[in-house]
Amino acid sequence: MASPEIETLTQALSRLPGLGPRSARRAVLHLLKKREGALEPLLRALAAVNERLVTCQVCGNVDTVDPCCICADPRRDARGLCVVEDVADLWALDKSRLFPGRFHVLGGRLSALEGVRPEDLSIDALVARVEAGGIDEVVLAMNATLEGQTTAHYLAERLERFPIRLTQLAHGVPVGGELDYLDEGTLAQALRARRPLG
Amino acid sequence: MASPEIETLTQALSRLPGLGPRSARRAVLHLLKKREGALEPLLRALAAVNERLVTCQVCGNVDTVDPCCICADPRRDARGLCVVEDVADLWALDKSRLFPGRFHVLGGRLSALEGVRPEDLSIDALVARVEAGGIDEVVLAMNATLEGQTTAHYLAERLERFPIRLTQLAHGVPVGGELDYLDEGTLAQALRARRPLG
Ligand SMILES: [Zn+2]
Ligand SMILES: [Zn+2]
Repeated sequence: MASPEIETLTQALSRLPGLGPRSARRAVLHLLKKREGALEPLLRALAAVNERLVTCQVCGNVDTVDPCCICADPRRDARGLCVVEDVADLWALDKSRLFPGRFHVLGGRLSALEGVRPEDLSIDALVARVEAGGIDEVVLAMNATLEGQTTAHYLAERLERFPIRLTQLAHGVPVGGELDYLDEGTLAQALRARRPLG
Repeated sequence: MASPEIETLTQALSRLPGLGPRSARRAVLHLLKKREGALEPLLRALAAVNERLVTCQVCGNVDTVDPCCICADPRRDARGLCVVEDVADLWALDKSRLFPGRFHVLGGRLSALEGVRPEDLSIDALVARVEAGGIDEVVLAMNATLEGQTTAHYLAERLERFPIRLTQLAHGVPVGGELDYLDEGTLAQALRARRPLG
């Protein structure tokens, strides 16, 4: 069998989503055979990201700069704010290029079962961002799960005193579906048909 | 969009076999979210492998030690030698644990089309290993392609003067099939039913 170092690398890769033990071994072999073309570039890229990784203090995105590239982008429409549960959701929406505004990552959703309370999420920071003004619309882009919708209703209550348009994604999101598993077409439809909350 | 460092990492990962752009992005997100649990272990594993990566001077395997773990393993039966085109084939056969002997990696196969000649492959080294003695059987485990079989016949001619049993994998290998894409069952059958060459 291979040396301990190679086994360790294979295991580290096989824990990535989308890579099982078989494809991890294939990936390792590829890296070993293409040291200059594959292994070293990947090593440099990982080291660069690891060195600079930060959580954006504005929106909760993970990036190598703070504020993150999205918050710092002057072409983004600062009047629109899209609230998501998770960084994965932010990335899915951002990649679709459908939402021209900025984001706010809650860091989860309210859950009686798992004991996740409002103070465990980045909700006060969201309220503060809205309170600071300059925002016309807040899109609540929670997952279409029971807990996601409970979270959206809680947020709607917290934000109702502000002069903003409060919307949520349309029912294009399949019930029980998680945003970052959706194709772009479904995301696009859900975002286009977004509707005022409650 | 994400910062240049994150884009570079996504691209480096998406070039691995088995990972497209979509799964690479998902993998990067996983790494960013689990810095201590995923990113740093992967970084350390890659760095350790990169630091020590060598080609085994005996068999042509890639490993972090030279001679490689297989050549250095005293439990391996030194009387059996399995000749493969590629390191990927060595790994596929080794993982199956079906062959108790050692390996020899040619580094490719003869190809008139691509101008690969005997002197471009590790054939003289193979002949020298057999000439040095102590080997009872050489299994020619070329791919079941036209070029693989041409290579096997060429090797058979080069090795016929030695007092060894010369075998090749049985026809369990699908015609046109590449060894390292086969399941273990097919590999096992092909190896069990291996037959004398010519
Ligand atoms: Zn940000
Ligand atoms: Zn070796």
